[in-house]
Amino acid sequence: MSQMILILNGPNLNLLGTRQPDVYGKTTLGDIENSCRIRADFQGMKVDFRQSNIEGELVDWLHEVRLSHAGVVINAGAYTHTSIALMDAVSSIELPVVEVHLSNIHAREEFRHQSYISRVAIGQICGFGALSYELALDALAAHIQNS
Amino acid sequence: MSQMILILNGPNLNLLGTRQPDVYGKTTLGDIENSCRIRADFQGMKVDFRQSNIEGELVDWLHEVRLSHAGVVINAGAYTHTSIALMDAVSSIELPVVEVHLSNIHAREEFRHQSYISRVAIGQICGFGALSYELALDALAAHIQNS
Amino acid sequence: MSQMILILNGPNLNLLGTRQPDVYGKTTLGDIENSCRIRADFQGMKVDFRQSNIEGELVDWLHEVRLSHAGVVINAGAYTHTSIALMDAVSSIELPVVEVHLSNIHAREEFRHQSYISRVAIGQICGFGALSYELALDALAAHIQNS
Amino acid sequence: MSQMILILNGPNLNLLGTRQPDVYGKTTLGDIENSCRIRADFQGMKVDFRQSNIEGELVDWLHEVRLSHAGVVINAGAYTHTSIALMDAVSSIELPVVEVHLSNIHAREEFRHQSYISRVAIGQICGFGALSYELALDALAAHIQNS
Amino acid sequence: MSQMILILNGPNLNLLGTRQPDVYGKTTLGDIENSCRIRADFQGMKVDFRQSNIEGELVDWLHEVRLSHAGVVINAGAYTHTSIALMDAVSSIELPVVEVHLSNIHAREEFRHQSYISRVAIGQICGFGALSYELALDALAAHIQNS
Amino acid sequence: MSQMILILNGPNLNLLGTRQPDVYGKTTLGDIENSCRIRADFQGMKVDFRQSNIEGELVDWLHEVRLSHAGVVINAGAYTHTSIALMDAVSSIELPVVEVHLSNIHAREEFRHQSYISRVAIGQICGFGALSYELALDALAAHIQNS
Amino acid sequence: MSQMILILNGPNLNLLGTRQPDVYGKTTLGDIENSCRIRADFQGMKVDFRQSNIEGELVDWLHEVRLSHAGVVINAGAYTHTSIALMDAVSSIELPVVEVHLSNIHAREEFRHQSYISRVAIGQICGFGALSYELALDALAAHIQNS
Amino acid sequence: MSQMILILNGPNLNLLGTRQPDVYGKTTLGDIENSCRIRADFQGMKVDFRQSNIEGELVDWLHEVRLSHAGVVINAGAYTHTSIALMDAVSSIELPVVEVHLSNIHAREEFRHQSYISRVAIGQICGFGALSYELALDALAAHIQNS
Amino acid sequence: MSQMILILNGPNLNLLGTRQPDVYGKTTLGDIENSCRIRADFQGMKVDFRQSNIEGELVDWLHEVRLSHAGVVINAGAYTHTSIALMDAVSSIELPVVEVHLSNIHAREEFRHQSYISRVAIGQICGFGALSYELALDALAAHIQNS
Amino acid sequence: MSQMILILNGPNLNLLGTRQPDVYGKTTLGDIENSCRIRADFQGMKVDFRQSNIEGELVDWLHEVRLSHAGVVINAGAYTHTSIALMDAVSSIELPVVEVHLSNIHAREEFRHQSYISRVAIGQICGFGALSYELALDALAAHIQNS
Amino acid sequence: MSQMILILNGPNLNLLGTRQPDVYGKTTLGDIENSCRIRADFQGMKVDFRQSNIEGELVDWLHEVRLSHAGVVINAGAYTHTSIALMDAVSSIELPVVEVHLSNIHAREEFRHQSYISRVAIGQICGFGALSYELALDALAAHIQNS
Amino acid sequence: MSQMILILNGPNLNLLGTRQPDVYGKTTLGDIENSCRIRADFQGMKVDFRQSNIEGELVDWLHEVRLSHAGVVINAGAYTHTSIALMDAVSSIELPVVEVHLSNIHAREEFRHQSYISRVAIGQICGFGALSYELALDALAAHIQNS
Repeated sequence: MSQMILILNGPNLNLLGTRQPDVYGKTTLGDIENSCRIRADFQGMKVDFRQSNIEGELVDWLHEVRLSHAGVVINAGAYTHTSIALMDAVSSIELPVVEVHLSNIHAREEFRHQSYISRVAIGQICGFGALSYELALDALAAHIQNS
Repeated sequence: MSQMILILNGPNLNLLGTRQPDVYGKTTLGDIENSCRIRADFQGMKVDFRQSNIEGELVDWLHEVRLSHAGVVINAGAYTHTSIALMDAVSSIELPVVEVHLSNIHAREEFRHQSYISRVAIGQICGFGALSYELALDALAAHIQNS
Repeated sequence: MSQMILILNGPNLNLLGTRQPDVYGKTTLGDIENSCRIRADFQGMKVDFRQSNIEGELVDWLHEVRLSHAGVVINAGAYTHTSIALMDAVSSIELPVVEVHLSNIHAREEFRHQSYISRVAIGQICGFGALSYELALDALAAHIQNS
Repeated sequence: MSQMILILNGPNLNLLGTRQPDVYGKTTLGDIENSCRIRADFQGMKVDFRQSNIEGELVDWLHEVRLSHAGVVINAGAYTHTSIALMDAVSSIELPVVEVHLSNIHAREEFRHQSYISRVAIGQICGFGALSYELALDALAAHIQNS
Repeated sequence: MSQMILILNGPNLNLLGTRQPDVYGKTTLGDIENSCRIRADFQGMKVDFRQSNIEGELVDWLHEVRLSHAGVVINAGAYTHTSIALMDAVSSIELPVVEVHLSNIHAREEFRHQSYISRVAIGQICGFGALSYELALDALAAHIQNS
Repeated sequence: MSQMILILNGPNLNLLGTRQPDVYGKTTLGDIENSCRIRADFQGMKVDFRQSNIEGELVDWLHEVRLSHAGVVINAGAYTHTSIALMDAVSSIELPVVEVHLSNIHAREEFRHQSYISRVAIGQICGFGALSYELALDALAAHIQNS
Repeated sequence: MSQMILILNGPNLNLLGTRQPDVYGKTTLGDIENSCRIRADFQGMKVDFRQSNIEGELVDWLHEVRLSHAGVVINAGAYTHTSIALMDAVSSIELPVVEVHLSNIHAREEFRHQSYISRVAIGQICGFGALSYELALDALAAHIQNS
Repeated sequence: MSQMILILNGPNLNLLGTRQPDVYGKTTLGDIENSCRIRADFQGMKVDFRQSNIEGELVDWLHEVRLSHAGVVINAGAYTHTSIALMDAVSSIELPVVEVHLSNIHAREEFRHQSYISRVAIGQICGFGALSYELALDALAAHIQNS
Repeated sequence: MSQMILILNGPNLNLLGTRQPDVYGKTTLGDIENSCRIRADFQGMKVDFRQSNIEGELVDWLHEVRLSHAGVVINAGAYTHTSIALMDAVSSIELPVVEVHLSNIHAREEFRHQSYISRVAIGQICGFGALSYELALDALAAHIQNS
Repeated sequence: MSQMILILNGPNLNLLGTRQPDVYGKTTLGDIENSCRIRADFQGMKVDFRQSNIEGELVDWLHEVRLSHAGVVINAGAYTHTSIALMDAVSSIELPVVEVHLSNIHAREEFRHQSYISRVAIGQICGFGALSYELALDALAAHIQNS
Repeated sequence: MSQMILILNGPNLNLLGTRQPDVYGKTTLGDIENSCRIRADFQGMKVDFRQSNIEGELVDWLHEVRLSHAGVVINAGAYTHTSIALMDAVSSIELPVVEVHLSNIHAREEFRHQSYISRVAIGQICGFGALSYELALDALAAHIQNS
Repeated sequence: MSQMILILNGPNLNLLGTRQPDVYGKTTLGDIENSCRIRADFQGMKVDFRQSNIEGELVDWLHEVRLSHAGVVINAGAYTHTSIALMDAVSSIELPVVEVHLSNIHAREEFRHQSYISRVAIGQICGFGALSYELALDALAAHIQNS
């Protein structure tokens, strides 16, 4: 049976494709979801793709999947840099979590260099646009297989 | 036809008039809404006045109005100083946004001097109580007219 | 008639007992609620016990009880360290508020040493697990009695 | 009888309209003076409009008007960020003072985010070009009326 | 047989009741000692209550009791924020130590927010005046019972 | 014809597999080279795999390949955090560069969180051991194809 | 023949007696001049008492007296904390200089704790109102006598 | 009857005259005591002159004199920069306290620029060697007379 | 016709040759003016040599020459490190400006390492005494020729 | 005749052998004293071995030996990092002083990396347990011989 | 006989003319060498022109010439900001050293403002492209002549 | 059979005896090598004495000896303060490493107080000139014997 992967998207990612295209490109979140489904399918995994602008709802969802899913890919958007609550949520569920970002956050404003989520995630992939998600799925698949 | 302006109020502003009157005065949020409607009317604009204590709901509302409204006046309250998500929302919608504060935030605690929203707003008006909102509507009207 | 005390719990505390047991122990939030009810009963108080992962909902609840309740015990979890909104909510309601933490936050990561809530609470109790809540109820009862 | 308002302009503002037009626009200081006179007239106030590049002369002028004038609008230019002497002058005269800036100083270089004058002014208006001055006159008129 | 608890008081606490009553209240150190004895008695413990203004004497006393006593309540006063020596003493004796403060140190000057002792104590109770000590005795009693 | 990719490895990576296996695992640099060759082959690329402990030699090699190769995968090891010279080299050659790390550098010592290379690379992949390199090759292949 | 002492007063000191009397008292600068003349007379010295709000004029005056006078008492007001130019002027003339302040600058805002002038003056006297000047004249007289 | 003044000397001052004469001169602490007695006599005051290397003993002595003496001159030596306990002692006794230093502490190492005692003393006099003490007695006499 | 170059000298430079000769040498400002005239003559340029201790006057002069002169050599003395007003003046006139210093400011006190003027000047020459000015004239001549 | 060396031990070192054996080992202070006596004897020196938990007593002892002894080995324990008074004492006596630590303080908590004593000692030896003392005696012997 | 001058070029300068031409221009390192030879010839000096990307090789070369050459012009590139080793090498050879940079490093990224080499060089010339080197040769020639 | 000890010397140490003799003395590196051989011989060890100015070569050598040698004494010179690569090399080889410095680095410039190597070495010996090396050999011999 396929394993379910939660792909969690944080604030403002719903506007993707319309918002600051020079930084994030023209791909929409729907496009990313599609690519993820294809890639996941290829890895024998299923995708549970969600987005919320509410920090606490992202926390809720992480809790919700902790027994039913096999792993998480998280792009917490701006909450990456400010949310200790999300960091605590990631460390409180016992699932492997991979952090992704569309843009290279380390090449942007100083306050985007820091990530609370990085402290508790397996690894981070950033800067490759939608491809960041697909690489994260690959990394997660490999991680799950080796555990 | 009148242009619609979103006036967005952040956390704790619903208590206005009851909360720390030495800092914020006795005017309620309802009073401010009324003054804004009168002033907007005078400028040939309509007001869509909202308040939420939830950061993500404020983000949602900014997204919601980005095609239907002509501009935004935002008093993000305490989220002013901590929310990169709101800053990203402001910069992702392509509307003119004016930042207001009832009190002079630069004369209060150190952690209230910094504003993420200022980095992407047209300008900031603070320290004049309810009048801050009215001046912001004037500034927004002038900005829209000149664009 | 018994006085009502709001016991407010922030993000991730719903997972208590399952999450990082070496830091927080095996007690669940339900266990804590029970202990609190017994202790409150002993003090002639009633307990209104709530938990949310959403910062704004915690703010809402503080507003909601400001006329009906006699005091608040708050464990804001990760929001302790990042939420000026919660700090403003605490100072805007005119109720006595006691801050609690299960673990000794001053002995953990540097970013957990700072508390915005401490600036406006009566006092802080941390490090005693579920007992922190009971001691807080005692402190609150004494405070209310002496006011 | 009309009340006199000092509008004080600091270093380099005399070059306005020629200097960095992408930041400050093409309006000259003379244009601003004219707009201010019209707006002040509308408010039943008179304008005393001055500019100096010398920090101490700005201090002198603030002292000079403290008994004769009803209020001050100040754009201290670069001295905003470095002059404790001007801050002391503002707090030593007992007149209401409104701080203005043509550009949004909070969206420029880090060293322009801090303002000594903000600590002692009623409020700050920035980012609206010449209109910042007119809004400041409105705010000052309202403040004087309510005092 | 009753267990002995050292209650250790640091610099200036001998003046309690006369010193800055707006911060610390009118209770004297003798009053606190009495309350502690009653509460300890209730918990089946005995109290060894001491005060010194000399950092090294406080260190000496911690060493002295490490085999004879069952636990320590410490209010290190100003040494809380500066003494690594006391922190080392607390960690070198193998007794449970609870840190107390009369006032809420987190709501006072910045330099009182930091505590070296917190890093090695079980927990901290502050802000409840003399009651802080009694709660600390309760916490200590519970801790000893559970160990 | 296959495109050539430089895979550049910095200081101490030659000891891989023997050094701190709890942090870096047991895979040797030879193992990684093999995986990379297979993956590159799959992508229709060829791999030029090098390692040096000398900062300047890494700079030399980047210069050397700037006309002959199609892209670079770089794991600069400890030089990641200290070498402006390598950052300048990366930005002076006009090739796409992807930064990799075996471990999640953001979850290690504070001084390993900062990366000069991130400021000029396309993106960063870290935390997945040898797989980090393979994912980087995939990202690079996609990038080259889309340019 | 009497020795001439320059007593140099910086920005806003001309308003003394009217400005923030809770900080600086009701004594005017004229009163201070009188006290200084009496005290200097007692010490067999003459006083050259000046005030300017212009930093550069204070520098000019220090240069002017460097051959004609025997020493300087300086209250540079707000320039104390920001003027490297005054510090250089003090060190470039080869006269003994004593720094005075009416208020205890070390007990006021953080930015008033630092003094550039202290780095090159003989000593500092602050907190004693007008008496600070008289003590400075005594100190200067003793210094000149011993040189 | 003469008023008693405590002159309190901190660590290493007992070695005065032998220690780093280029910084502190050749005067011994006995010489200073003599000068102080003469000056105090002139002011109709008596001197209680003490020295200790133990921080807590200095605290003890401040407590001891709080009802019997009329004021304090304190040279806390190195404890000036590190002792919050002494600062608390100064603020807990209700006597006027003047801070003195032999050398100009603001012109020495960075860590000697900060003084905890300054935050609660009337004023500070530094840089004039033994004369600093005599000026402090004058300042104290004037202060007591005016209270 | 010869091009006119403004050589602008800031505070305390008028004392050159008398002031701290170990840092600045014995050359007077008149000597430097002479050398500059000779060197300028050689370059087919004329020199307009000025000095002021008043920050605002330096700003005035920069404004004054912006249409009549071909370039500026500026030694802003102590204002180099503190004056945003001078930096703004340099960037507001559209002339090439070369920054000079007699001493190597980067080898002196920490607070002299930073230069606001450097941010907007073409380049900086420091450490060569009077020769710094001559090299600056050479650099300016070359720059003007190439523009 | 043998030269006398003071070996001075600071706070908590009296507990050595019982306290945190993973950091400091099982050797007692008595064991160290014995090793030191043997080693000193070998060097033709005598040892005066003392320990105190009181900062001021350590200062007293340094003063006491300044004429009678030939040098000092000091392990100031926690006072190493906080005591300017001990640093002043070391620099005020004119004896060679060698600083030792049992553990490698540079590999422990950040606040243990800084040493005030290092600024005035000849050198530092740390990390070798009791052997640190013996090496210090060797270094001191060589130093005394060469002076 | 002509004096030999080492002109030392650090990392990435070999790519000059191809690398970031908007920052460094199109001139190659060969062009600069030619200009230097001509200018040196004019000054009666000979040029020994070298480049390396290896920090230690630059150190080696500085050592190598310390007896044979008359001075050094150094453009250490990125090592300017990070290499204490080069700073030590410059101070260990007893030759006059002039620091040059093609671009104005003070107007670039924050981390390029600091220079270790500046602390030990005679002076710094930056911002004039290849001309920086020629001016440095002039400065060096004058320095050698005057020594 | 004798154990081999690598004694590794970093940048500029080859100039020892000629370079800044007031800081490092007149002893050459050859002299140190001789002393080390004698001392090592005494300890039944052999010395492999090397020096390089190239960071990467020092890393190479550490790798090279990790199976053949019994321990390392390292004086990394300026790389001590900047090289994470050397720190990683020290921790990646599993040999005991003792850090030495000729001068007391803690009493020199601020940037020399920090050592990356200290974080992973057994201990540090500094300030005793050539003797530092000999003491390090003693410490290493003892360490090896006890392991």
